[in-house]
Amino acid sequence: MSYLLVREDREHLLEPGDTLESDLGILEVPEDVEPGDTLETHIGERFVVREPRGPDLFDHLERTGAPMMPRDIGLVLGQLGLAAGDRVLDAGTGTGILAAYLGRLGVEVTTYERDADFAEVARDNMATAGVADRVEVRTGDVTDDLDALSDFDGLTLDTGDAATVVSRAPDLLAPGAPLAVYSPFVESSRDCVEAARDAGLVDVETVETIQRGMDFDERGSRPSTRGVGHTGYLTFARTPLL
Amino acid sequence: MSYLLVREDREHLLEPGDTLESDLGILEVPEDVEPGDTLETHIGERFVVREPRGPDLFDHLERTGAPMMPRDIGLVLGQLGLAAGDRVLDAGTGTGILAAYLGRLGVEVTTYERDADFAEVARDNMATAGVADRVEVRTGDVTDDLDALSDFDGLTLDTGDAATVVSRAPDLLAPGAPLAVYSPFVESSRDCVEAARDAGLVDVETVETIQRGMDFDERGSRPSTRGVGHTGYLTFARTPLL
Amino acid sequence: MSYLLVREDREHLLEPGDTLESDLGILEVPEDVEPGDTLETHIGERFVVREPRGPDLFDHLERTGAPMMPRDIGLVLGQLGLAAGDRVLDAGTGTGILAAYLGRLGVEVTTYERDADFAEVARDNMATAGVADRVEVRTGDVTDDLDALSDFDGLTLDTGDAATVVSRAPDLLAPGAPLAVYSPFVESSRDCVEAARDAGLVDVETVETIQRGMDFDERGSRPSTRGVGHTGYLTFARTPLL
Amino acid sequence: MSYLLVREDREHLLEPGDTLESDLGILEVPEDVEPGDTLETHIGERFVVREPRGPDLFDHLERTGAPMMPRDIGLVLGQLGLAAGDRVLDAGTGTGILAAYLGRLGVEVTTYERDADFAEVARDNMATAGVADRVEVRTGDVTDDLDALSDFDGLTLDTGDAATVVSRAPDLLAPGAPLAVYSPFVESSRDCVEAARDAGLVDVETVETIQRGMDFDERGSRPSTRGVGHTGYLTFARTPLL
Repeated sequence: MSYLLVREDREHLLEPGDTLESDLGILEVPEDVEPGDTLETHIGERFVVREPRGPDLFDHLERTGAPMMPRDIGLVLGQLGLAAGDRVLDAGTGTGILAAYLGRLGVEVTTYERDADFAEVARDNMATAGVADRVEVRTGDVTDDLDALSDFDGLTLDTGDAATVVSRAPDLLAPGAPLAVYSPFVESSRDCVEAARDAGLVDVETVETIQRGMDFDERGSRPSTRGVGHTGYLTFARTPLL
Repeated sequence: MSYLLVREDREHLLEPGDTLESDLGILEVPEDVEPGDTLETHIGERFVVREPRGPDLFDHLERTGAPMMPRDIGLVLGQLGLAAGDRVLDAGTGTGILAAYLGRLGVEVTTYERDADFAEVARDNMATAGVADRVEVRTGDVTDDLDALSDFDGLTLDTGDAATVVSRAPDLLAPGAPLAVYSPFVESSRDCVEAARDAGLVDVETVETIQRGMDFDERGSRPSTRGVGHTGYLTFARTPLL
Repeated sequence: MSYLLVREDREHLLEPGDTLESDLGILEVPEDVEPGDTLETHIGERFVVREPRGPDLFDHLERTGAPMMPRDIGLVLGQLGLAAGDRVLDAGTGTGILAAYLGRLGVEVTTYERDADFAEVARDNMATAGVADRVEVRTGDVTDDLDALSDFDGLTLDTGDAATVVSRAPDLLAPGAPLAVYSPFVESSRDCVEAARDAGLVDVETVETIQRGMDFDERGSRPSTRGVGHTGYLTFARTPLL
Repeated sequence: MSYLLVREDREHLLEPGDTLESDLGILEVPEDVEPGDTLETHIGERFVVREPRGPDLFDHLERTGAPMMPRDIGLVLGQLGLAAGDRVLDAGTGTGILAAYLGRLGVEVTTYERDADFAEVARDNMATAGVADRVEVRTGDVTDDLDALSDFDGLTLDTGDAATVVSRAPDLLAPGAPLAVYSPFVESSRDCVEAARDAGLVDVETVETIQRGMDFDERGSRPSTRGVGHTGYLTFARTPLL
């Protein structure tokens, strides 16, 4: 578990025992630090300790690629309708943002990352997010392990070969359990939909989400002139109840 | 906690001890029913027992108005970045879908509903969703109780006078805690943004989300010719960390 | 050239010499009818004569399929930036809405329709729209005539094999002349883009347009809850200037 | 009327009689220049003469503010459904892009610009676009002249006080004639809708248009990650036919 050390416009995400060195001096984070504490550097500069929340993790976790955006994480969460205690199979981990959000909500996650370096970073990120006990980051390709995986309450995929895993969803998931695939391209989304249909999944759909900010100023109200670009298509499906 | 009893194209959401009477006969749900069990009516017709998941609750909870859609629930979840154990203040409850989703994810919810009948339905819905111990539905207007409420980890509002509550957010929320307001109209969203700015909140933004289905058939791939209409604007903000 | 005969909630689009028979009696449209005239049926019921405008033609022309919407016609017009007197090659004609709009704006149109019955209806529609002298509807497949077609100021395509024509655009169009392809599907749009790039065209782009109505009522202002579905992708390109 | 002089990656929009001075030497544009001619500078560097098309005018006209985009010009054209010879009342002129597009399509335009300097630039732009004989740029506020204006076939507005003019539309327009208002803000769009309803106009609607480019590359097809921002709302209405 980590903590935010905040002072004016500075923010640092640190764990108990960490040392922060900056132009404001050296600060040691005590093992028993708690939100609300005030810590001082060796030259007396003060930082306030805060509990990091989801958006803080999103900003501070180490990135190994473009992480899934809070918007897309949310759409997955809303569509899957998971419960704390559910077991979710995830691939590929990447930065681990989705896994961290799931873990924080009490979901048990088994996540696969093919790149060993990325997997190592993701493990550190899970520790930082305080979910190392609920998120297991496995180094490797999930498609190699499919025969050994079963009875999950949800499946989340952000990999190039997601369709291969989707086609095995009936073996991987409990009855009625949902899956979500994030894919930037029409073609890969289509592949997943076809794999889902061929596998007998139900409630198969692909959605694209366009989100626009609203500007409110003294002249009036309008959608932002700054556009919001495409992130990815989300494909959803469920295993049949029977 | 309730269970899905499933048979061909029939689905019933029932609790242990409930009795189902239909043209297929009478079926009593045992107190010790578990997912995977097969139950028989008194004339031998079989139903399989399944664990209801989020989408099932969305379909089966009793509605007292237009419930927030899974899409919007998800966007709130993704933006708030809550963790199991967080305490959230919610108003107005309505059908209680958002509260049920939050409760299932381990969040402790205090939710206000002004309409006593709606509140009663919402309480039943929380029991059905198995979250009665984590979601407290209070009958009344949250604005009457603001002085007694504090230190929440999140605030979610779907009421006509949300701006009034937003202006008190610094007193209601812990430092850095997020809020989300769902409002169908530009004017009420603008009111919330102005209230948030006046209250010194940070990361204030209003977004509109347009979601389109994709159609994949033998002729090709395209966005759905069935349009998806507006549900509501979502306004987000956080209390300052300091 | 045709005229609108209007009375309360009735509208008829008729040409000089036509006879209108209805429960209000028989009305003969004089050859010298003019907008502003009042005409009477043989039992004295009155109709006012109005000049039909673009939206009236859209509503009253005989349809042989789903016509291009005014929105998409407009996007083509805006992107092509044509001038009165320009020569445009069009295929397939369909109902002829795009051709009629172009003809009304002084553009000379040569349009191909493979279905002989549709072509005949389109010719009638051009007469109704008063543009028969500026729009030539040819029965046949434009791809059969490509060698005989050249020096057009614009090319507009709404056919399944548009990419074939796009690949010949440098021969069909004057230097710097624009083209527009309307296609419902991602795959056919992509084919056109690839054909355009291979043919050395410039300013190649495909756009998708989402249009939403706004609802203004006493409760507030918001995007319509009635969604607007996908019509088609528009692909634009130009021949090089040199 | 002006012409494009093109050479490799250079383009100049010049009128007959103009002189182009550059590092490639001095070039005089003959009075009898025609598209397809090749012109030489005094040191023998060659430029090819091309007819400028709508998109070229959009790129080369002198700007006095943010011009209406081809997309929005097109949506206005498509919705209004004008014909060559129609008379349109326009305010405020701005750069004059909309007026130039209308004039090129044979529409007679009377356009008002309050800023005398902007009006002068717009007059030059109309000459450059070759539509000076069809577009009259008047310096002044259209609201001062409303009593003297009538019987137009269309009305296009891009001014802050558009609602004032909309309320007078029944006096300004012929029966059944359309109007379009471009306004960036919700509030001003709403004002126009209310003015239109109060004035007894029909087919009153406000639309917002979101346009996204598609990216086609070797990895697949997807909407552009570059977002497209809001330009403005378009409000449409017509005078009643009776």
